[in-house]
Amino acid sequence: MKTTRIVQKILANYESDNPGTKANLARMLMEGKLGGTGKMIILPVDQGFEHGPARSFAPNAPGYDPHYHYQLAIDAGLNAYAAPLGMLEAGADTYAGQIPTILKMNSANSLMSDTAGKNQAVTASVSDAQRLGCAAIGFTIYPGSDCALDMFEEIVELRKQAAAVGIPTVIWSYPRGEAITKDGETAIDVAAYAAQIAALIGAHIIKIKLSTDHLMLPEAKKVYEEQGIDISTQAKRVAHCMDSAFGGRRIMVFSGGAKKGADSVYDDARAIRDGGGNGSIIGRNSFQRDRADALSMLSQLVDIYKGKA
Amino acid sequence: MKTTRIVQKILANYESDNPGTKANLARMLMEGKLGGTGKMIILPVDQGFEHGPARSFAPNAPGYDPHYHYQLAIDAGLNAYAAPLGMLEAGADTYAGQIPTILKMNSANSLMSDTAGKNQAVTASVSDAQRLGCAAIGFTIYPGSDCALDMFEEIVELRKQAAAVGIPTVIWSYPRGEAITKDGETAIDVAAYAAQIAALIGAHIIKIKLSTDHLMLPEAKKVYEEQGIDISTQAKRVAHCMDSAFGGRRIMVFSGGAKKGADSVYDDARAIRDGGGNGSIIGRNSFQRDRADALSMLSQLVDIYKGKA
Amino acid sequence: MKTTRIVQKILANYESDNPGTKANLARMLMEGKLGGTGKMIILPVDQGFEHGPARSFAPNAPGYDPHYHYQLAIDAGLNAYAAPLGMLEAGADTYAGQIPTILKMNSANSLMSDTAGKNQAVTASVSDAQRLGCAAIGFTIYPGSDCALDMFEEIVELRKQAAAVGIPTVIWSYPRGEAITKDGETAIDVAAYAAQIAALIGAHIIKIKLSTDHLMLPEAKKVYEEQGIDISTQAKRVAHCMDSAFGGRRIMVFSGGAKKGADSVYDDARAIRDGGGNGSIIGRNSFQRDRADALSMLSQLVDIYKGKA
Amino acid sequence: MKTTRIVQKILANYESDNPGTKANLARMLMEGKLGGTGKMIILPVDQGFEHGPARSFAPNAPGYDPHYHYQLAIDAGLNAYAAPLGMLEAGADTYAGQIPTILKMNSANSLMSDTAGKNQAVTASVSDAQRLGCAAIGFTIYPGSDCALDMFEEIVELRKQAAAVGIPTVIWSYPRGEAITKDGETAIDVAAYAAQIAALIGAHIIKIKLSTDHLMLPEAKKVYEEQGIDISTQAKRVAHCMDSAFGGRRIMVFSGGAKKGADSVYDDARAIRDGGGNGSIIGRNSFQRDRADALSMLSQLVDIYKGKA
Amino acid sequence: MKTTRIVQKILANYESDNPGTKANLARMLMEGKLGGTGKMIILPVDQGFEHGPARSFAPNAPGYDPHYHYQLAIDAGLNAYAAPLGMLEAGADTYAGQIPTILKMNSANSLMSDTAGKNQAVTASVSDAQRLGCAAIGFTIYPGSDCALDMFEEIVELRKQAAAVGIPTVIWSYPRGEAITKDGETAIDVAAYAAQIAALIGAHIIKIKLSTDHLMLPEAKKVYEEQGIDISTQAKRVAHCMDSAFGGRRIMVFSGGAKKGADSVYDDARAIRDGGGNGSIIGRNSFQRDRADALSMLSQLVDIYKGKA
Repeated sequence: MKTTRIVQKILANYESDNPGTKANLARMLMEGKLGGTGKMIILPVDQGFEHGPARSFAPNAPGYDPHYHYQLAIDAGLNAYAAPLGMLEAGADTYAGQIPTILKMNSANSLMSDTAGKNQAVTASVSDAQRLGCAAIGFTIYPGSDCALDMFEEIVELRKQAAAVGIPTVIWSYPRGEAITKDGETAIDVAAYAAQIAALIGAHIIKIKLSTDHLMLPEAKKVYEEQGIDISTQAKRVAHCMDSAFGGRRIMVFSGGAKKGADSVYDDARAIRDGGGNGSIIGRNSFQRDRADALSMLSQLVDIYKGKA
Repeated sequence: MKTTRIVQKILANYESDNPGTKANLARMLMEGKLGGTGKMIILPVDQGFEHGPARSFAPNAPGYDPHYHYQLAIDAGLNAYAAPLGMLEAGADTYAGQIPTILKMNSANSLMSDTAGKNQAVTASVSDAQRLGCAAIGFTIYPGSDCALDMFEEIVELRKQAAAVGIPTVIWSYPRGEAITKDGETAIDVAAYAAQIAALIGAHIIKIKLSTDHLMLPEAKKVYEEQGIDISTQAKRVAHCMDSAFGGRRIMVFSGGAKKGADSVYDDARAIRDGGGNGSIIGRNSFQRDRADALSMLSQLVDIYKGKA
Repeated sequence: MKTTRIVQKILANYESDNPGTKANLARMLMEGKLGGTGKMIILPVDQGFEHGPARSFAPNAPGYDPHYHYQLAIDAGLNAYAAPLGMLEAGADTYAGQIPTILKMNSANSLMSDTAGKNQAVTASVSDAQRLGCAAIGFTIYPGSDCALDMFEEIVELRKQAAAVGIPTVIWSYPRGEAITKDGETAIDVAAYAAQIAALIGAHIIKIKLSTDHLMLPEAKKVYEEQGIDISTQAKRVAHCMDSAFGGRRIMVFSGGAKKGADSVYDDARAIRDGGGNGSIIGRNSFQRDRADALSMLSQLVDIYKGKA
Repeated sequence: MKTTRIVQKILANYESDNPGTKANLARMLMEGKLGGTGKMIILPVDQGFEHGPARSFAPNAPGYDPHYHYQLAIDAGLNAYAAPLGMLEAGADTYAGQIPTILKMNSANSLMSDTAGKNQAVTASVSDAQRLGCAAIGFTIYPGSDCALDMFEEIVELRKQAAAVGIPTVIWSYPRGEAITKDGETAIDVAAYAAQIAALIGAHIIKIKLSTDHLMLPEAKKVYEEQGIDISTQAKRVAHCMDSAFGGRRIMVFSGGAKKGADSVYDDARAIRDGGGNGSIIGRNSFQRDRADALSMLSQLVDIYKGKA
Repeated sequence: MKTTRIVQKILANYESDNPGTKANLARMLMEGKLGGTGKMIILPVDQGFEHGPARSFAPNAPGYDPHYHYQLAIDAGLNAYAAPLGMLEAGADTYAGQIPTILKMNSANSLMSDTAGKNQAVTASVSDAQRLGCAAIGFTIYPGSDCALDMFEEIVELRKQAAAVGIPTVIWSYPRGEAITKDGETAIDVAAYAAQIAALIGAHIIKIKLSTDHLMLPEAKKVYEEQGIDISTQAKRVAHCMDSAFGGRRIMVFSGGAKKGADSVYDDARAIRDGGGNGSIIGRNSFQRDRADALSMLSQLVDIYKGKA
């Protein structure tokens, strides 16, 4: 596998990482139809845990079978497939070596009461990632939750273990919990802060949500206004978030949320591209469509990231 | 022990497991009168812990003696016998090698107040399972309890230890606690979700309760109705739960609950069979009957699973 | 030391234990005036911790000195002496080898407020038991306390460590706490349940209190009445508790509580004997009497257990 | 260093301790002007942590410098100097070998709110004691606090580690917290109980406060009155506390509290001596006086313990 | 690197430290324009974590890039650069060996609610400091927070690990939380106490805030008045804090807080110098100015500490 110059330049930003960790980043950056472009599309399938099986898979029933998602990611030429332990294990042998996998290390669910706090259970370990041949581990943090400090400490420890054996870390940085209003979950100041925290605690790849032009934190709002930070378009907001990821020294991908119309998905991707983001992590919008539609949509997204659409 | 084709097919679904773990799954699948059919009946005796000795054993007093249950499982030709540490130890030598045993690793009790939360104590370890020659470990999770994340993390750790030494894990996935209504404990959406969570955190065998056609979660109810998921019969509900266990890639058995009439027990088994479930885990309905009745009922259940009744 | 047939029969019930653990059980069963009979009298002195020094020792002031109790247990020909770390250490050398000792691993005290919950501090370790040459470790659990699950997990871990090095475990199973009414602490259904839990989590010797014919748990009460369980006399209640200790496969001794008249102590012992219990654990009723009285009482108790009184 | 007969007799009470631990007890008992008498005066300087620097050292400003206290203890011919990690480290090299040191392992402070509970932070480890050449570790427990069980468990663990490498443990047993009234903190029944607990959890040297004739615990009060325990003078109360320290088998020293008149300090020492106590631990009453006064007072205390004043 | 006499004198105060730890202190003391003077200026950049990226870096946008801060510290001839894990890693290779770095081990953020308590997440480890070649680790404690005891215990453990491998510890001692009023956060009695605690738990370098003449603690206020402690000027208050840092045996630097006018920054530095403090730790006042202004200000500060301005 010969890496392209653009990938080499990205890898050079990971100044303190060992060659094993860089090699796994390269595996993902060089994989699939976007291989070598510095752009990525990742398929994540942890919604069965987060929302339950029927809400996740009934709209496209073949998705109940873990093999379906491996095959979809391979056939669509994506960069990586991310899922919890059981999902990866159920196809680990059949698809060994055919697509880089990201072991999602923690998961929330929709069965628990609010009194239990906003948190996730850690359901896998770095040694699981090793024996399953994963290219990365994934972990969600909830900045703004009363459990956030514990979550930060959990991923810091797992990330240390993983990096020591050459496995990079993807952090899903999703503001949520006691201190975050509903609008605040996608406010641009909060999103940029979430990106910054993920970078500071050592994420190799950061995943955040696309944001709105809402500003939640009064102290921050003042600065945005005083400094005239341009947050008027999605592409500008993506660019501001990239700034907050060490001035773009960290790979960042954006998620699209619940299933929606194809045009809206394409618009998001163009904004990510134009704002300098590294790509999309796209779950329900791919596996809840039927296979043909999903492949067509993913093909179009590839074209967008290649600048052809 | 030569495995049948149907058992080999089941084992092939455990793609990431080592030969030791598969061998222990095979031990249980090949044991007893249902050996080789891919169906299972398991005798679980942890009710002394859960409900106390008199409520559990007074209806059939020989059951106070742990030897009784070993002998019952052997004589009925069951696939495995599951019990807490003390129960297994009290007959471990006499019955060594005569029946696969499942060490139940955690237990609840009826003596504690509600303020203590819905949780169980971990009362055994993987090394106990090893020195007692167990074919599997068993663990209860309470999805929906405020303690659920902790319980998930406990079994994930124990499962990792066990699988590393070739011991598979049976998860009792029983929705219960702060977020679950009384009806919700057996609602079909909740049952399917419970099966999914158990599969995702790595269960080799999943145990859930038979469900009703109630739908507890509003977000899920909407999807069940929109997608027209058929939950009108017990067999359909079993089939839906099997879908939720990785499209049937995981062994799942169903429990019957409190003692009830024999015909009702048989109807349950037929629904499990017709819905594609792997069998029954049947405690009070066997050991609270006198020995002759229990043997006769278990014999009939074997016939049902063989398609002869 | 040649063991008697009755002791051998008791030891045979410990099917999964290693020879070291059985040898230590034998040490206690073969010691003193009841040696070889299968009956036991144990002297426990942890009241200084539980109630304070003056309430415990002022009634018979020589008891302030730890040597007093070693000597009393030896001179009375008892089977074992149980005490917390400091008490055992203070005479460990002088009395080395003269009486089997049980290291009490946890203790409560009367200085703490109710808001702190019903719990005990773990004040010793298995390695302490080893270096002091103890024949067993002792541990109190409070079934019904909000701390009960933690206490179960603590002793399960200590018991595993101890059994691995040939040291058996004595569990004081004392229902107490948030879910237990005052009458419930000695209710027969609760006592039998406490015995069952101790057996299930692996106690080699169980210590419970003598009970009343009160029934605390409504669900249990129903069963006691339906099944006509005879709890009309103390001997019947002892027998029911022995049933709940794996049908008598576990050694169980009974405690007598606060100091009271000698006749009452003797009546208790006769009920324990007649109900099939293995003996008494008798603290304040021995060491709070002056030495001559205590020796005389203990001698009479020996006769009762031998069937001579 | 040849030990005196009285010191040998004291050491003989530590029946289970290894020679290293006894040697360190001997180091302290044989040091300084009271060396060999079985009596001790210890200088403790942890008030900077407990009350802050100005309240502790402004009255005698040279005390801001950690060297001052080492030199004071040496020049006064005391048995040992006790302080937290930072204080000992700041003079560890200059005064190496010149005075036995006790590493105070935990400390409270006056900056925290009551809602945080009565507890202390553990700020040193046994390996720190080893590398600093300390003769003992020191630890405060708060019997009666809701945190007491945790504190007991902390010192039990540290004491085990320390004793294994030949370092004895000094326990400051200070009743305090949710269950203790203001008067109760120095009540004689509570003080005796505090001594007993420290002895039971393994203290080699116990430090308690001098007490009043108040009785806090109703159950205890009854016994004190029934048994006619004489608590009418300070010397009688000291004697009763010595009884509660295993009938005097454990070394016990008494603290004097806040700075007060010299005569009062001398009266305390005479009561300790006459009641059979082993000496004083005297902080603010020494280092808050100017150096000349402090040396003169300490010299007089030595004379009192020698029976010359 | 030949150390100056003044640096040797400072190092001699670290009596118990190993040569590796002293060498790293020397690295920082000998670095940059103040090298060898015993004075220090440190650049800390953890505000992205504490306040978010826009509030921290928008005023001087090149600061979004971690390289900017390394370069600023080098070009200004500072003694060290302190930052969280991600920030250091992002320039670790480019700037290896060019400036001593301090790995900030814990961080707070402005996204969490008050109900979560005043605490920080530990986001790095000593092995991270080793592989990044750091000259020290840094850690914030919040004396007065309900979490303070936990924070003390965390840094005590990390400091032990770090010192064992020759890495000194910088403690940011910032009173904050349940027991501290707004004015109390900078009250002189509280500041001096914060310095004392940091010294006692083993800080090699202490960082506190400059204080006001407010006195928060009533017990302390009494002593300050009785003893006539002079706290009328900033220089006097610095001197009092140095007293509280073991009479000046520990290096202490002072922070300046939010961005303000240059003259005010200079006045602070003169007070620190005149009061005997070791220097400044200056973040927002340097990196929120444009690079030229910042370099000019830092140059002036160097002159002040050299006594030339």
